[in-house]
Amino acid sequence: MSSLTSQITISLDGFAAGPNQSLDDPLGEGGERLHEWIVSTASWRAHHGMEGGERNADSDVAESLVEGVGAYIMGRKMFGGGDGPWEESWRGWWGEEPPFHAPVFVLTHHEREPLVMEGTTFHFVTDGIESALAQARAAAGDQDVTIAGGAQAIQQYLAAGLLDELYLHVVPILLGGGERLLENVGAPRLEPVEVIASPAVTHIRYRVHR
Amino acid sequence: MSSLTSQITISLDGFAAGPNQSLDDPLGEGGERLHEWIVSTASWRAHHGMEGGERNADSDVAESLVEGVGAYIMGRKMFGGGDGPWEESWRGWWGEEPPFHAPVFVLTHHEREPLVMEGTTFHFVTDGIESALAQARAAAGDQDVTIAGGAQAIQQYLAAGLLDELYLHVVPILLGGGERLLENVGAPRLEPVEVIASPAVTHIRYRVHR
Repeated sequence: MSSLTSQITISLDGFAAGPNQSLDDPLGEGGERLHEWIVSTASWRAHHGMEGGERNADSDVAESLVEGVGAYIMGRKMFGGGDGPWEESWRGWWGEEPPFHAPVFVLTHHEREPLVMEGTTFHFVTDGIESALAQARAAAGDQDVTIAGGAQAIQQYLAAGLLDELYLHVVPILLGGGERLLENVGAPRLEPVEVIASPAVTHIRYRVHR
Repeated sequence: MSSLTSQITISLDGFAAGPNQSLDDPLGEGGERLHEWIVSTASWRAHHGMEGGERNADSDVAESLVEGVGAYIMGRKMFGGGDGPWEESWRGWWGEEPPFHAPVFVLTHHEREPLVMEGTTFHFVTDGIESALAQARAAAGDQDVTIAGGAQAIQQYLAAGLLDELYLHVVPILLGGGERLLENVGAPRLEPVEVIASPAVTHIRYRVHR
């Protein structure tokens, strides 16, 4: 069976988003600083149809994140903000050509027909994380399923013992509050299996032992 | 001027001690797991007069922690548990030959004459962290001053803008509660300058920019 992986950027004090998140400020105060490392890379920019950027260890990491991924799972806030239901006209944050290029399974409480966009189809799953995983695995075939985020989606799969890999990008900032990643997840057995260091971020890949 | 460094082991969820710390259980529930990595090293064991242990990257890190240190600062709980005052007969946790082999300045609210032990003298400082630092710097000469712990002592120096280096040993366990290291410290500018990885722990040395 293919692996269920996840990757997310957190601050050194453990937050995946800053304080006072809202629909207008989904990353919270200071939260955009979490993502400066990846937005500055050449590989991320190319993947999002942009030019320029740095070619460095972080760019190699960013490129590796989309390799071998057959399907994505994401939380509802990451698709479209808030808890929904969304208007049918609302097609999410990701523009008309989303950067996934694979089926995406969105965890939500609100049924919706699949949303077919250029290269990416969003499927809305209302019957729980195990159903979303089964559907994503079927779509991914031999390839991995990756949780694109956010923190709550990763928490749920980690707590349920369904996650095989947690790849953390630890940015050397302190947000002082916000949405914590590693709480309410029980006591999984984690093993660091790869560490890549740069001046901007420390990438630590943890295997989750069942 | 010599540097003020610090080093401490934390769990992946950011705790320097587990939940429900007490005089009988100063590391809190599960907290002893934080220190398994260092206790297992040959260099730490030799430094504490014990035989055996592993010779590996972690052992090299443990050895580096005591190199070039001219004086230590520590919190009162790390010297002797609780907040004091202690009976004059209480000579701290560290045995008759403490592993410091340098002057140690203990932050406390209770005056006490210096405690001279084999190779180490404990000085009790009641007039604040800046005084302790000045005294430690005078004792250290050209060598560095290191905060031996615990979390609160590091927090105070970091919040006051007096710290030059924060060396974290991140152990891949989740304690789920306890004493957090990185809170109430403001927003220092941190730069990761060295990362050493092992299966047991990820060592990240941060420079603190003033």
